[in-house]
Amino acid sequence: IAKEVAKLLEMKAQLGGDEGKHKFVLKTPKGTRDYSPKQMAIRERVFNAIITCFKRHGAEVIDTPVFELKETLTGKYGEDSKLIYDLKDQGGELLSLRYDLTVPFARYLAMNKITNIKRYHIAKVYRRDNPAMTRGRYREFYQCDFDIAGQFDPMIPDAECLKIVHEILSDLKLGDFLVKVNDRRILDGMFAVCGVSDSKFRTICSTVDKLDKMPWEEVRSEMVGEKGLSPEAADRIGEYVQLHGGLDLIERLLQDPKLSQNKLAREGLVSLARGLDYYTGVIFEAVLLQQENDHVEESVSVGSVAGGGRYDGLVGMFDPKGRKVPCVGVSIGIERIFSILEQRVEASEEKIRTTETQVLVASAQKRLKLISELWDAGIKAEVLYKKNPKLLNQLQYCEDTGIPLVAIVGEQELKDGVVKLRVVATREEVNVRRESLVEEIRTRTSQ
Amino acid sequence: IAKEVAKLLEMKAQLGGDEGKHKFVLKTPKGTRDYSPKQMAIRERVFNAIITCFKRHGAEVIDTPVFELKETLTGKYGEDSKLIYDLKDQGGELLSLRYDLTVPFARYLAMNKITNIKRYHIAKVYRRDNPAMTRGRYREFYQCDFDIAGQFDPMIPDAECLKIVHEILSDLKLGDFLVKVNDRRILDGMFAVCGVSDSKFRTICSTVDKLDKMPWEEVRSEMVGEKGLSPEAADRIGEYVQLHGGLDLIERLLQDPKLSQNKLAREGLVSLARGLDYYTGVIFEAVLLQQENDHVEESVSVGSVAGGGRYDGLVGMFDPKGRKVPCVGVSIGIERIFSILEQRVEASEEKIRTTETQVLVASAQKRLKLISELWDAGIKAEVLYKKNPKLLNQLQYCEDTGIPLVAIVGEQELKDGVVKLRVVATREEVNVRRESLVEEIRTRTSQ
Repeated sequence: IAKEVAKLLEMKAQLGGDEGKHKFVLKTPKGTRDYSPKQMAIRERVFNAIITCFKRHGAEVIDTPVFELKETLTGKYGEDSKLIYDLKDQGGELLSLRYDLTVPFARYLAMNKITNIKRYHIAKVYRRDNPAMTRGRYREFYQCDFDIAGQFDPMIPDAECLKIVHEILSDLKLGDFLVKVNDRRILDGMFAVCGVSDSKFRTICSTVDKLDKMPWEEVRSEMVGEKGLSPEAADRIGEYVQLHGGLDLIERLLQDPKLSQNKLAREGLVSLARGLDYYTGVIFEAVLLQQENDHVEESVSVGSVAGGGRYDGLVGMFDPKGRKVPCVGVSIGIERIFSILEQRVEASEEKIRTTETQVLVASAQKRLKLISELWDAGIKAEVLYKKNPKLLNQLQYCEDTGIPLVAIVGEQELKDGVVKLRVVATREEVNVRRESLVEEIRTRTSQ
Repeated sequence: IAKEVAKLLEMKAQLGGDEGKHKFVLKTPKGTRDYSPKQMAIRERVFNAIITCFKRHGAEVIDTPVFELKETLTGKYGEDSKLIYDLKDQGGELLSLRYDLTVPFARYLAMNKITNIKRYHIAKVYRRDNPAMTRGRYREFYQCDFDIAGQFDPMIPDAECLKIVHEILSDLKLGDFLVKVNDRRILDGMFAVCGVSDSKFRTICSTVDKLDKMPWEEVRSEMVGEKGLSPEAADRIGEYVQLHGGLDLIERLLQDPKLSQNKLAREGLVSLARGLDYYTGVIFEAVLLQQENDHVEESVSVGSVAGGGRYDGLVGMFDPKGRKVPCVGVSIGIERIFSILEQRVEASEEKIRTTETQVLVASAQKRLKLISELWDAGIKAEVLYKKNPKLLNQLQYCEDTGIPLVAIVGEQELKDGVVKLRVVATREEVNVRRESLVEEIRTRTSQ
């Protein structure tokens, strides 16, 4: 029966494909979007700031495929694994879309036996999560990752990752931000002194991580209800995870009679857990703080824009002999940053150019010959694709798209061996000898 | 039973996931690859040449998701549809990975009711084809597309697309190349006069397109055997498709007693078909010609590096009212170009830098303070992550990675308020006042 149903469904799909020609649902898949030229211009600005910073810190760049063998991702993301996109089994290998850039990076290191690299990787990752697109939460989204792999003196690379977060968020002028720092070992130590069994560390940590999205009562009831933790242990955890603070908190926790007994838990604790399974040491997350002119109801929606941490065990999971390569890294989440900047541009009515065209060739005569000369000289030039476009329309096009210059050759100019160059903003017109035109355009458009 | 089997399989997979920790197959999926930092450096060069050209021609840039609704791709690729990657049905929409950038572009135009745009789009596309990676044929590969959409005077945008192919292939200095030009209407006219029924045009065209991969005899037998064409019609097609030539061929075909009768077939014909279903007018393809020092056995392996054509019907397939937007575009295939340049770099032993680091901070004293100052001033700087690295090791690192300068602060320099700057290539050393250091590094590394 199943086979027959499948056949019928396939036939139906095929029929639908032909008959339903004009019944397409015209949309992008749930949780995804296109980028218009204007949005791309803003995206490029953000990428430039981030790449400049990564390069300033001496990082190389790599790229990996958008999908990995399914087994490469298995066992790396704990409860989040259910959010992985799988590809259909069409024969051959079982594949999944990458969920982050960290696991592919670890696979790359193990596969190429690299024990020492500082690299960045900017690419889209995929999560079948509940999208909240107005808040910059998508199913397809960019991650901008910077990681340092290698056996080094403690905390120097970790500190550099935090410095990078600080530099990028400052550069982008997103307003005040807070970088929360924690350490997986403190969390584990805290769980231990609260009476959580070793086997429950990861799953309880996953629940604690939801504290930024739901109130403590709900988190507690998930621990006790779904995860089977004793109410007493949950309450003990509650006392710890609701603490916030800086160096002073670290001092206080070191005095804590229970926690200070735990070998792992010697340093500070803030309310940060990070959901991913593979962290082993320092973990951190940067959140933007509420802006005065930000029209959001709940402060909860001012989300995380960067996060990272140390994952010393991940590469070893891929190595046939389990050889470890210590790693620490940071991931910048572009989407939230992007929507803030997009809103800001929208509000300011700043006009964003989406092309870099220097000159419109608006001759009545031999336009294609002139523009070809300009292209060959490296000038960015456009021509309207009409046989005899009106000058007024061409000037309007320049106004709309921000093209600063118009080159005009009429019969008289052809005879005189000159080109009339018009500055769109000032309406100034000058005759330029044809052989000096390229130089003149360059000079007038170089700022 | 199916349900039980699924359950068991899932349990097996879970067991495999835990037990098989060190039994990972360490590879990227079939037909895909990673890019190392060195390969990325070459890739960036190629992209720069292409993007520079697209911008010179006034193109905007857009981006679309890596997957589309499955139905968006249905009915666009003819027989190649079987090569589309589908995503697993995990609930919700049925999705497929994009097969090219043209169909998503048409979907974007229809969805946003855009009737007029010149845009480029550089992104990976996915085809479950037989990979031949040494020849640059992958399952995940980049396309660099430039398209002009809008109702314009005939052939001006079409000619610009050909100009772009010429500019890019010349810029990249890949050696001699040939741009083959044909027109879908000539092909259709030719099929008609050869006695192919209308309904078989597309499928026969698909077979003709294989002429660059297999000899005429095999193509003929596919037409007759698989596609059910009469042997006489096939032979008549054979006479036409094996013709090659330029303007002279067009003259000859216009004299052809049969072809000149056909309303559609008024112009030149070369042995080019293009497999994609959606072309309606001009089609073209650029191939690299054999290089003297190219170590390839068969001339067949010198493949296509760019292709494109006019597709006036595609956007209308998405529009609810079938409104047409005429389009013409070109797609540059980066992978083949990339492997040629990679081989060339390999052969030349040219040393490619994979970072842009200007200076290594090699002080014995307060390294982190100094490097932090440099970063804040925008200098690209690195430090080795060791507490007391040996100077010799640090100089060796500079030699290996091409870092031109080393900044050294010892006790004496700290006292004197200077930094010792060493030029790696010449071993020259100068003392620079700390407040002039940034300027000095900038001057020495600006070419």
